[in-house]
Amino acid sequence: MLEVLGREGYAGLTMDAVALAAGVGKATIYRRWSSKAELLLGVLDGSVEDDLPVPDTGDLREDLVALLTTTLELMDGPSGRATRSLLAAVVGDPALAEAYRRGPLASWGRAWATVLDRAVCRGEISAEAAASAAAEVGPAVLTVRWLVTGGPLDADVVTELVDGAMMPLLRAR
Amino acid sequence: MLEVLGREGYAGLTMDAVALAAGVGKATIYRRWSSKAELLLGVLDGSVEDDLPVPDTGDLREDLVALLTTTLELMDGPSGRATRSLLAAVVGDPALAEAYRRGPLASWGRAWATVLDRAVCRGEISAEAAASAAAEVGPAVLTVRWLVTGGPLDADVVTELVDGAMMPLLRAR
Repeated sequence: MLEVLGREGYAGLTMDAVALAAGVGKATIYRRWSSKAELLLGVLDGSVEDDLPVPDTGDLREDLVALLTTTLELMDGPSGRATRSLLAAVVGDPALAEAYRRGPLASWGRAWATVLDRAVCRGEISAEAAASAAAEVGPAVLTVRWLVTGGPLDADVVTELVDGAMMPLLRAR
Repeated sequence: MLEVLGREGYAGLTMDAVALAAGVGKATIYRRWSSKAELLLGVLDGSVEDDLPVPDTGDLREDLVALLTTTLELMDGPSGRATRSLLAAVVGDPALAEAYRRGPLASWGRAWATVLDRAVCRGEISAEAAASAAAEVGPAVLTVRWLVTGGPLDADVVTELVDGAMMPLLRAR
């Protein structure tokens, strides 16, 4: 399913293609999902990103580098094209956007919140800083470069965002 | 065309619907554009955002507030839905992404670069700061909240991003 999405995009994600990739009959696919959007919603609800590993190095800077590096690897990795097609569908369809927020995005949100909460408990940053837009800066810049602007996405960008933007902003409040 | 896109999304943007909205025959549409993607590329190349007004208040903070406020108004305004459908198509199609970067995105880039260059000339910030990721922070957070996460997009977010993130980062380098 994600393989079809990566190869064909959302437009090419037909029930036929999914049945073929899954090695089952089309009737089996239709018994579970009545439409392409529903099929994608089902995938979103049981997404693999539910098991996102949360870094716990004991140091906020290292945890942020780890989270952003994981993000970059997902964008650049074998599932990157599928995730891009999925996000294209999410951007264009409010029902899919809602399912995406409930599923994969909530997992990411929990991972980020855990890392920031631990830094608050260690006294590295204030609770106010953890709840500010500063915490969104790194993932937002990576996401917009990846999906829209095509800006650089190398390893340097992670240290620039962590040391040049997120840590100074999070420590300042 | 943008009206059809706003109402129906990219999937509903058929040559029939565009011909109907334009009050011309379908043959006229097909004479100019051979496919839906080409039609959208044509719209992108002649986009209204080419005439993006560039604020020039003589103060970087005020210029940044003006640019981000314009961005928010576009997201929330009558053309917001059409722009969202357009971006969904851009995210999912490399050829459209390329045309978007050449057209509307380049206009935005020029407006941001002009505002930052003027601040460098006035001695408000360094050239290094103007070229850093700090300059992307505001638009990136707004774009990701709008397209993906559904985070808050009220007037407060503009001052939070300008005074809490962009100005401190741009002044620090």
